[in-house]
Amino acid sequence: MRYQLGEGFWSRRIRQVQDRMIPLQLSILKDEAPDTEPSHAIENFKIAAGLSKGEFHGMVFQDSDVGKWIEAAAYSLMIRPDPELEREVDDIVEIIGKAQQPDGYLNTWFTIKEPGKRWTNLQDCHELYSFGHLAEGAVAYHQATGKRAFLDIMCRMADHIDTVIGPEEGKLHGYPGHPEAELALWRLYHETGNPKYLKLSQYFIDQRGTEPNFFLEEWERRGRINHWSGRKDPVNLPYYQAHEPVREQKEAVGHAVRALYLYTGMACIAAETKDVSLAEACRRLWKSAVEEKMYVTGGLGATVKGEAFMGPFELPNDTDYAETCASVALCFFGRAMSRLEKDGRIGDAVEQALYNTVLAGVSLEADRFFYVNPLEVIQGVSGVQQGLEHDLPRRPKWYACACCPPNVARLLTSLAEYAVQETEEGFVVHQYLDGAVEGEKAKLTLQTQYPWEGLLDYTIEAKQDITLELRIPGWVNPAEATLVADGAEKPVQPEKGFVKLEIPAGVHRVVLSLPLKPRRIYADPRVRQTAGCVAFARGPVVYCLEGCDNPEPLWNLQADPDAEITVTDYDSACLKGVRKLLVQGYRRSDVPGALYGTQRPEREPQLLTAIPYYAWANREQRDMRVWIRE
Amino acid sequence: MRYQLGEGFWSRRIRQVQDRMIPLQLSILKDEAPDTEPSHAIENFKIAAGLSKGEFHGMVFQDSDVGKWIEAAAYSLMIRPDPELEREVDDIVEIIGKAQQPDGYLNTWFTIKEPGKRWTNLQDCHELYSFGHLAEGAVAYHQATGKRAFLDIMCRMADHIDTVIGPEEGKLHGYPGHPEAELALWRLYHETGNPKYLKLSQYFIDQRGTEPNFFLEEWERRGRINHWSGRKDPVNLPYYQAHEPVREQKEAVGHAVRALYLYTGMACIAAETKDVSLAEACRRLWKSAVEEKMYVTGGLGATVKGEAFMGPFELPNDTDYAETCASVALCFFGRAMSRLEKDGRIGDAVEQALYNTVLAGVSLEADRFFYVNPLEVIQGVSGVQQGLEHDLPRRPKWYACACCPPNVARLLTSLAEYAVQETEEGFVVHQYLDGAVEGEKAKLTLQTQYPWEGLLDYTIEAKQDITLELRIPGWVNPAEATLVADGAEKPVQPEKGFVKLEIPAGVHRVVLSLPLKPRRIYADPRVRQTAGCVAFARGPVVYCLEGCDNPEPLWNLQADPDAEITVTDYDSACLKGVRKLLVQGYRRSDVPGALYGTQRPEREPQLLTAIPYYAWANREQRDMRVWIRE
Repeated sequence: MRYQLGEGFWSRRIRQVQDRMIPLQLSILKDEAPDTEPSHAIENFKIAAGLSKGEFHGMVFQDSDVGKWIEAAAYSLMIRPDPELEREVDDIVEIIGKAQQPDGYLNTWFTIKEPGKRWTNLQDCHELYSFGHLAEGAVAYHQATGKRAFLDIMCRMADHIDTVIGPEEGKLHGYPGHPEAELALWRLYHETGNPKYLKLSQYFIDQRGTEPNFFLEEWERRGRINHWSGRKDPVNLPYYQAHEPVREQKEAVGHAVRALYLYTGMACIAAETKDVSLAEACRRLWKSAVEEKMYVTGGLGATVKGEAFMGPFELPNDTDYAETCASVALCFFGRAMSRLEKDGRIGDAVEQALYNTVLAGVSLEADRFFYVNPLEVIQGVSGVQQGLEHDLPRRPKWYACACCPPNVARLLTSLAEYAVQETEEGFVVHQYLDGAVEGEKAKLTLQTQYPWEGLLDYTIEAKQDITLELRIPGWVNPAEATLVADGAEKPVQPEKGFVKLEIPAGVHRVVLSLPLKPRRIYADPRVRQTAGCVAFARGPVVYCLEGCDNPEPLWNLQADPDAEITVTDYDSACLKGVRKLLVQGYRRSDVPGALYGTQRPEREPQLLTAIPYYAWANREQRDMRVWIRE
Repeated sequence: MRYQLGEGFWSRRIRQVQDRMIPLQLSILKDEAPDTEPSHAIENFKIAAGLSKGEFHGMVFQDSDVGKWIEAAAYSLMIRPDPELEREVDDIVEIIGKAQQPDGYLNTWFTIKEPGKRWTNLQDCHELYSFGHLAEGAVAYHQATGKRAFLDIMCRMADHIDTVIGPEEGKLHGYPGHPEAELALWRLYHETGNPKYLKLSQYFIDQRGTEPNFFLEEWERRGRINHWSGRKDPVNLPYYQAHEPVREQKEAVGHAVRALYLYTGMACIAAETKDVSLAEACRRLWKSAVEEKMYVTGGLGATVKGEAFMGPFELPNDTDYAETCASVALCFFGRAMSRLEKDGRIGDAVEQALYNTVLAGVSLEADRFFYVNPLEVIQGVSGVQQGLEHDLPRRPKWYACACCPPNVARLLTSLAEYAVQETEEGFVVHQYLDGAVEGEKAKLTLQTQYPWEGLLDYTIEAKQDITLELRIPGWVNPAEATLVADGAEKPVQPEKGFVKLEIPAGVHRVVLSLPLKPRRIYADPRVRQTAGCVAFARGPVVYCLEGCDNPEPLWNLQADPDAEITVTDYDSACLKGVRKLLVQGYRRSDVPGALYGTQRPEREPQLLTAIPYYAWANREQRDMRVWIRE
């Protein structure tokens, strides 16, 4: 599908990715960004290619940053040609090609630093992960430009992997420690038609967690040393989702990004091969992640320990992790799940992640990034105190482990693929993305100021009769929504979250109007951290209180359960354009007394001002809080 | 002072220590306890003595467990002669004597395991800590029995230390990584009159944290390797309270037990030498620990990371540490502070620690022990989930690092020393301890059912005119207390927390009656974790809700801010004798719904039942919570 930017919310963000994030990230990859720790990622390829001298620097998966950046650049080129950017990619692809070994092997760490140790530590060393990201970049670049060079490089690497890993005797019976190759191989299969790649992806999925456990055997072979700690640590199999065969897994566990990448690959393969038991596992794992382990902001992975999921309903707000990449990965997983089944709740969860944690991962100027997305931040505590060191109160410029920024870049530049799904019948609209999406059968143009306004004004230029299915978000009361097709009012009676219209060939106008009333959100009573608390939202946007607008400490504020929530006018000058929410509440007296006393603190009325969660930490450094006592 | 047990609350506990804990701990030290990991502590001494063959087992500070046990046994002997117990101690002392090296050195780790490495790692290896605990045991045993053997052994070790560490050229300019020797040397000085020990203690205190920093120099000398991690870790000086000279320290930081042992030693020396600037530092550090960093249960050290203090007012309830030893150490510090100044708030804090966290560290049967004392426990989360692994929902039988159980034993068997201070004028009563305390000038007998009843019935047999000062706890409204001396009512107008009576020589009766009304406790508004919450207490006893008495999950319960709190009759059959508190409240509907919805949970009336915090986890395993939403 082709996508043309419009003038709305997402188009402005995507343009920012094109104009700022992609050039910024390239300058970092090329070690040319001022005041930023050099990435050395492209330099590693140059050294491996013999074009430069020096040592490897960076993470064992440093190559993947290049793959993700090329992927984002490719999507950007699909939206807007840019010969200069294309030349940059071509130059990098040429270097990558030269770094490839005669047998097809491609990984700068093992080429430069540990040449004898290829494929000896699938668990820790990310060879298949880096391959996957480079392969995704190659597929995207081929789609964008038709140029085969990078795709061919990555097919050679995939062919090489196929000679090393697989069910046959003499091969390693392994799979990726960090999943990613599964979904990348599926994409490589789609782009090339080579069934070998589909089969290898299936092998990774089917082999995972079976007995005898590959990671345990590999651990013994390498003397039980963990790459990261350098020590003899026991293998925490659930961390790798390798504790049981994937079809038997019922709970989303372990490292959240690994888990969600794995589930995405599983869902891609399940839809591709009509694999019923695999699809069933995907549904269970989706439910576990989204219905029991997701923050109201669409964040996933509640603990810094292993960047991992905690148990069901265990969602601490101040020590949380909620890695930006995990919410990006939820969008991947959701898109793949939508190929398995039509259920508006999938789009609801993707929407929750997109408008909140994914966007919060990037500053409004698109120049600073959060890796971790807390729901409560306290100055002098968050980012400082023991156990909260990871919950930074400000977005840093860059990270040594720079997985999140390019992940956001590639997601947003390909957002049309998540928003609109082309099926045999027509279009299924999962997200309201302003601009024009053109598929085989029709072009769908959306004019909207969503999420600030509820009016969604579609023009459909259909080359043939199609169906148009629009997701009605779960937070909408359908009785309050209206739908007008070519001037005729249609009932809004969603089935499994979608209303369906028959659109004859020709040009048509469909106007959906969603009520964007501000609302109070309460968590399931099984969530202990939010008992007695309320959060505020309007449409897909979850709000937070920031110390810039409210008296600190924010924990002494309380919302009035009966007060009306006022929505301010859209203010384009505030936080790059937002509506705020205002609600009457109380402020508990914070006159310090004894540490423990018998006097109940007095309270006085206080108007509370909430801003979109994604926009926090863009003004002076103050406290922030999503859940407010009621 | 001599102490005779009575029949009240503390006497029953102390008898339990004598009858159960001391024999149990001896059997563990001798590796004779069934179903318990062998301690190997005495075996280590036997091996070092050449009486046994084998390897060292246990912690680098395993010797200290023996010292602490002997100290508890000695105090027990002072209360109640026990020839069998005395023989056991004598046997152990004989082994310890044989384990001592010709130069006086005594430490089984460095004698058996690393003979060449003595004094190379003061920071990590606890040589001075183990010395200190053995020396405290030796002092106590000398006081109890008049036998000098152990005292002489420990003086020889102290003399040896004095040849190794000190200001003179050629000696190490070091100090203990884990403070303890400071206060032990002060006790050794008091018992022997040898000023060398006082001087060495002063050196440790004065030298700590000065430039050039000894720990940094030592770290370089040993190749930067940390004993515990085995890796090249940087030195976290505040963890060791070695980041600045102790006189300049203003905030209680780092490992809580190390800190409180250090401050205890500082306060002992400050009182001994009338060291004004050291006393001033002690006051500041006391205030920091007690007025900004203490849990309502008297727990200290909010984080598992380094078993350490967090910043002021940062007091998480579910991930907390609050090591039993830290509350025991607060009692040490408080006792030492009381020698520096008369202030009832010191006894208030000691009382808070004693009746709550110290007691909670031991099961009601005195056979199981908490190391960590959480204020909120959730089944399936506490002790299990990442970041809460240390917050166990049940007391284990024993610990590999068995510091806490013998610490409680030695504190309780010497509780009279904390309760009653004999001064030149007479007695200062800090704690209400049933039984009879006999000093030089008088014998003080207390009959009471405190903390269940507020009647404190004293008989004073004074050999001369004395003053009697009674602490009126900070939670008492003095206007509601009554004081009757020999039938005459006296005003209760405490000065700095004490009422003072002149008692002429002869036998007199003083009856103090404290109102034990149940009360609501609110934390300072700077404590974010308890905003909007209430805790319940009656007298010195802080209460908690346990799932055995209340519907789980407890976080869905809410207390009515206006309801009267009812006190149940004393029930000797319940939890070894308690009064419960009952208060009307609410229970939020816990019908599971969507993870996030717009429906505010309904609530229904619910009577809340609270039990003393110290008695939790003595019935079936359920959830527990001290702070309740109001």
